[in-house]
Amino acid sequence: MFLEAVYHRPRKNWSYAYDGKTIHLRIRTKKDDMTEVFALAGDKYLWDDTMEYIPMEKLSSDELFDYWACETQPPYRRLKYGFLLQQGREKRWMTEYGFYTEPPANPDRLFEYPFINPENVFHTPDWVKDAVFYQIFPERFANGDPSNDPQGALPWGSAPPERDNFFGGDLQGVIDHLDHLSELGVNAIYFTPLFTATTNHKYDTEDYMMIDPQFGDKDTLKKLVDLCHERGIRVLLDAVFNHSGRTFAPFVDVQKNGENSRYKDWFYIRSLPLEVVDGIPTYDTFAFEPLMPKLNTENPEVREYLLKSAEYWIKETGIDGWRLDVANEVGHQFWRDFRKVVKNAKPDAYILGEVWHESSIWLEGDQFDAVMNYPFTNAVLDFFINRSVDAEKFSFMLGKQLAGYPRQASEVAFNLLDSHDTARLLTLAGGDKRLMKLAAMFQFTYSGAPCIYYGDEIGMDGGHDPGCRACMEWDTAKQDKDLFTFYQTLIQLRKDHSALRTGSFHFLTAENNGGKLAYRREDEQGSIVILVNNDKMGQTLSVHVDEAKWTNLWTGEAVEAPKGRLSVKLPAYGFVILKAGE
Amino acid sequence: MFLEAVYHRPRKNWSYAYDGKTIHLRIRTKKDDMTEVFALAGDKYLWDDTMEYIPMEKLSSDELFDYWACETQPPYRRLKYGFLLQQGREKRWMTEYGFYTEPPANPDRLFEYPFINPENVFHTPDWVKDAVFYQIFPERFANGDPSNDPQGALPWGSAPPERDNFFGGDLQGVIDHLDHLSELGVNAIYFTPLFTATTNHKYDTEDYMMIDPQFGDKDTLKKLVDLCHERGIRVLLDAVFNHSGRTFAPFVDVQKNGENSRYKDWFYIRSLPLEVVDGIPTYDTFAFEPLMPKLNTENPEVREYLLKSAEYWIKETGIDGWRLDVANEVGHQFWRDFRKVVKNAKPDAYILGEVWHESSIWLEGDQFDAVMNYPFTNAVLDFFINRSVDAEKFSFMLGKQLAGYPRQASEVAFNLLDSHDTARLLTLAGGDKRLMKLAAMFQFTYSGAPCIYYGDEIGMDGGHDPGCRACMEWDTAKQDKDLFTFYQTLIQLRKDHSALRTGSFHFLTAENNGGKLAYRREDEQGSIVILVNNDKMGQTLSVHVDEAKWTNLWTGEAVEAPKGRLSVKLPAYGFVILKAGE
Repeated sequence: MFLEAVYHRPRKNWSYAYDGKTIHLRIRTKKDDMTEVFALAGDKYLWDDTMEYIPMEKLSSDELFDYWACETQPPYRRLKYGFLLQQGREKRWMTEYGFYTEPPANPDRLFEYPFINPENVFHTPDWVKDAVFYQIFPERFANGDPSNDPQGALPWGSAPPERDNFFGGDLQGVIDHLDHLSELGVNAIYFTPLFTATTNHKYDTEDYMMIDPQFGDKDTLKKLVDLCHERGIRVLLDAVFNHSGRTFAPFVDVQKNGENSRYKDWFYIRSLPLEVVDGIPTYDTFAFEPLMPKLNTENPEVREYLLKSAEYWIKETGIDGWRLDVANEVGHQFWRDFRKVVKNAKPDAYILGEVWHESSIWLEGDQFDAVMNYPFTNAVLDFFINRSVDAEKFSFMLGKQLAGYPRQASEVAFNLLDSHDTARLLTLAGGDKRLMKLAAMFQFTYSGAPCIYYGDEIGMDGGHDPGCRACMEWDTAKQDKDLFTFYQTLIQLRKDHSALRTGSFHFLTAENNGGKLAYRREDEQGSIVILVNNDKMGQTLSVHVDEAKWTNLWTGEAVEAPKGRLSVKLPAYGFVILKAGE
Repeated sequence: MFLEAVYHRPRKNWSYAYDGKTIHLRIRTKKDDMTEVFALAGDKYLWDDTMEYIPMEKLSSDELFDYWACETQPPYRRLKYGFLLQQGREKRWMTEYGFYTEPPANPDRLFEYPFINPENVFHTPDWVKDAVFYQIFPERFANGDPSNDPQGALPWGSAPPERDNFFGGDLQGVIDHLDHLSELGVNAIYFTPLFTATTNHKYDTEDYMMIDPQFGDKDTLKKLVDLCHERGIRVLLDAVFNHSGRTFAPFVDVQKNGENSRYKDWFYIRSLPLEVVDGIPTYDTFAFEPLMPKLNTENPEVREYLLKSAEYWIKETGIDGWRLDVANEVGHQFWRDFRKVVKNAKPDAYILGEVWHESSIWLEGDQFDAVMNYPFTNAVLDFFINRSVDAEKFSFMLGKQLAGYPRQASEVAFNLLDSHDTARLLTLAGGDKRLMKLAAMFQFTYSGAPCIYYGDEIGMDGGHDPGCRACMEWDTAKQDKDLFTFYQTLIQLRKDHSALRTGSFHFLTAENNGGKLAYRREDEQGSIVILVNNDKMGQTLSVHVDEAKWTNLWTGEAVEAPKGRLSVKLPAYGFVILKAGE
C-alpha cells in the first residue's frame, strides 16, 4: 500500500454536510492501489451501538489518485469516523493519528464531524441546477433606444469592437430581443455591469446606485426583469465590489482633497498624491489599472454602501442574484456579510464569484454558491479545442475537479467556455464548428449550469478582448442557423432529461493518447450514455452496458446493444447521445 | 520522485498571511524524497519583473513526510506561486494543474493567494505567547467565604471528590491565595464555569448573567480580576454556549409549557414531551446528558442572549478572554459573531475553543485564537507517561502538528497535560515524579502557552473525573515542595528566555526504539538546546552543535562542546537545558 498517497482531512470536499441530515465522506488513495475502501463511523457517545463499516465507491480518478466517497445519516447528527483501506487481504485502518494494522479500540483518536449545525450546511439554489445561462455584454447586444446612445456612438456593427468605442447597446435592446432568448431556450441571463461608468465594459463603476443612462434606468431594468420572469428567465447582475471607477465620487474627493478627504480610508492609498509612477499607481487597484482603485471593503462606510447596493437592486428590481467581479481579492468577512444580506433579501439568490483558481475556501456555505468554473473551461478547451491533452488526461482533469468540491457546489457550478474576458469559442476552435459543437455538447451534458456567451449561438467569432465584444449580429441572413439549431437542441435535451443536469457522472472510456470518450449520466429518471469521437478520423466506439435497447436522443432512432456491448460508428468529431430504453 | 505524496492546497496551514505583509507557504513531500524545494512566486500582473525562486526549508517531518516552508512579502500583497521539487538533478514543477518537467510559461495555472486583505489576517493576542496558565476548578480551589457554602457542603478536603458533593470553594478563596499563584509564577488563570448552575462543575448553566452565589457575585469577580491584573495575571472564564442546564429558565419554560412555550425554538427538540427513553433524551443534549439541553445558537434570541453575556462579563469585570466549552458542536457563524463581539469589547481577548481533534477550520482567523491542544497532550503522554511511543514517533506526532497549523496558531496553542476532564498527570505517571517532571519540562520548553492544572504543582493526584477534582491541599506540610520548586524554575526559565516561548523549534535527536531526545529552540536572543533521556537507564546524549560554550540554565554550570560535539551524561529520566554562551 502506498500510504503516503492517502489523504483525508476533515471538512471542505473531504467531509461535509450535504443537507441537514447527511454527511458525505471522501478519501483519496493512490491510483489502483486499494481494492476496497470503507468508512468506519458512529456516534462517539454511543460507539458500540452505532459503529458501522460503510462501503465507499470510487467517485472519480485522476492520473495519480482514486477518490472514494460514501454518505451516512448519523441519527444524532454527530460523527466520529475513520477509514479501512484494503488491498486484497492487506488491511490498514486510518485515524486522525495515522495508519494502523488493527482496528481502533475506541473512537477517541478518529476524525470527527462534531455536529450538523444547520448554519454549517451549504445550501445552493435549486433553480441553478436547471439553469442555462446566457451572458450579455449590454453595450453590444442590441440598441433598443437610440435616444440614450452615448456621444460618438457608432452605427450598430459598423466597426470592429475597440477598447474605447461605443455602439449604443442598452436594456431596451435586450427587451426587444427576449424572443431570441426564448427561442434559443435559455432560462437565465448574466449581465456584465449595468451601473454608471465611463468605459464600454462598465467595470469602472461611478455610481453603484444608478443604471448607466446609456443603458436605461431603474425602471427599464425592472421592466426587463419582470418580462424575463414572465418567460421563466432569471437575471443575474455583475457586482464590481473589489474596485470602483476613477469617477466614483469618493475617489474624486480623494483626488481633489488628498490627505484631507473624508474618503481617504475608502481606498488603499500607498502614498499621496494619487499618481502613476512607472506604470504603478500610488494606490492599490485592480491589476495596475489606474482607472480602477481598489475599495477598502473593511471600512464600515464602504461596506454599508456596497451591501446596501446589493440589497437595493434585488428589492427594487427583483434580480435573482449577483456575479462578483474579482471576488477572490476581496476579504472573506465581507462576502459573509454579503451572503447574509443577499440571502435575506432573496433566499434563492445565486451568488457567483469570479475566481479562476482553486476556490474551496469560498465554497463552504458561508460565501459563494459557485464560481466561474474556469478550471472546467481549461479542461474542455485543452481537450476539444486546443487538442493539447488526450481523452484520458481530460477525464483526469475533470475527475480531480469533481472530487475537489462538495457535491452541492458542483451541482451549481457556472460552466462557461468563453466570456468577455476570453477569445470566443469559434475563434479558439480556428473556425472549425465541429470542434466548437463537441465542446458545447460536453458542456451541456455535464453537471453544473452551462453559459452561452451572447452570439456564440449564431456563429459570432472574435479574439481576446476587445475582439470578443462585437455587436450582436441581428441580420438573420448573417446568422448561423445550423449552430442556432444545434444549441437549441442541446438546451432542449438538457431540459428534457434530468440525468444530464443532476445525474451521477462516470467516465466509461477515456482513451490514452487518443480522442475516444464515453460517459454515463444517470438518475432515477433514466440512464444516458454519450459517446464522443474527438478525432479527425471516423472511429467505432464500443462500451459495455447492461441495457440492450437504446434510443438516440438527437434523431429518435433505436440503437441495439447486443450482448452487453454498445458499438457506434462515429465520424470525425462525431458524437451520439443515447438513452437506455426504447 | 514520489509525486503522489506531494501535497499543497491553498490556505489553512499551506498558504496563509502571517501578518499584513507576509505570506507563509508550505508543501509536503514524501520523507527524504526531495533534496531541495523552492517556491516559485510573483505578482501575476507583473510576473516577469517579480517572479523569483524562494528556497524552502524543512519545517518538520513525520513518519511519512517532510514539510517545507518559506515566507515572502509580495510588494502588492498579491501572490501567484508554484513549487520546484528537486531530487538531485531531477526536477518537477508543481502548479495547481499538476506536475511538469518544464517551468510554467506564465502564471495562469499556478496557485494563488489573491490579496492580503487585512480582515483575512489571523491575529492572535501577543500576551498569550508569554502566558503560563493555571486552571482552577473553583468549587475545589479554596473556601474563602464559608457564608456562601452550599447546603450540605463538606469540610474542606474531608472526603474524596464525588460527582455530587460540595466543599465550598469560591472566588474569595482564590483571592486569598493569589500569593500562591504569584509565588509559582503563573500569569493567567483559566476558571472552569462560574455562573449559576446546580452541579459542582457548573457546566449546566442556569443563568449566564449571574455568578453562582456559592462562588460570590459580580463584585467578587471584579475584585478578583482587578487584583489579578495588579499582579500581571490575566483571567479567562469558561463559556458554556453549546448547551444550558436543565434549570435554565427558557428550558424550564419548555418543560412546563411544551408545544406552547415561547422558548421551544431555543433548543433542538426532537419530540415532546421532554423525556428520556432508553437513555436517550427526546431533545438534543451534550452527549446524552439530560441535564444539558443543547442550545439552538441559530435562534436570534439565543444568539443575542449569549453574545450579550460574552460581552457583559468582559465589560463589567475586565476578564481577558473566554474558553469555549464543547466549541466544536456549535455553528461556525455563531463563533464568527462571537469573535466580533469579543474582540470589539477587548481587542486582545483570548478565544480558546475546546476541540479535541483536528481544528484547522476554527483556526483561520475568523473564529478562535487557539484550541485546547489535546493532540499535544496525547503526544506528550504517549511518550513520557504511557511510554507507548518512542522518541522518534513522538517527534513525528509533534512535527505533523507543527506543520498542520498556521504559525500564529501554534504560538498561542493552549498546551495542557491534564485537566478537570482527565486523570491528573501524577496519577497517569503512576506516581513517578520523574516522568511527570520530564513531561512538564517538555511542556514548558515547547511553543504554545503551558497550563498547570491546580494542585499538580504541589503533587496532588487523582484519577479521571471526579477523582481529579479533589480539594486543593493547603496544608503546607502535605504539599510537595520539590515539585513546587520544579514548576517555579520551569516558569522562570520560560519567562527569562524568549526562545523557549516563540523561538524556532527543531528536533536534533529523536531515537528510534528509544527515549533519547534533543531539540533546539532559537531566536535572536539566544539558542537553547534541551537533551532528554526518557529511559530507565542512565545514558550519554551527544548532538552536533556549532557553539563551543554552553551554560546549564538549571544549575548555572558551564558546559563545553569540544569539536562541535555536545555530550552530556544523563541519569534515568534526566534532562538538561543548555543555552549557547557563557
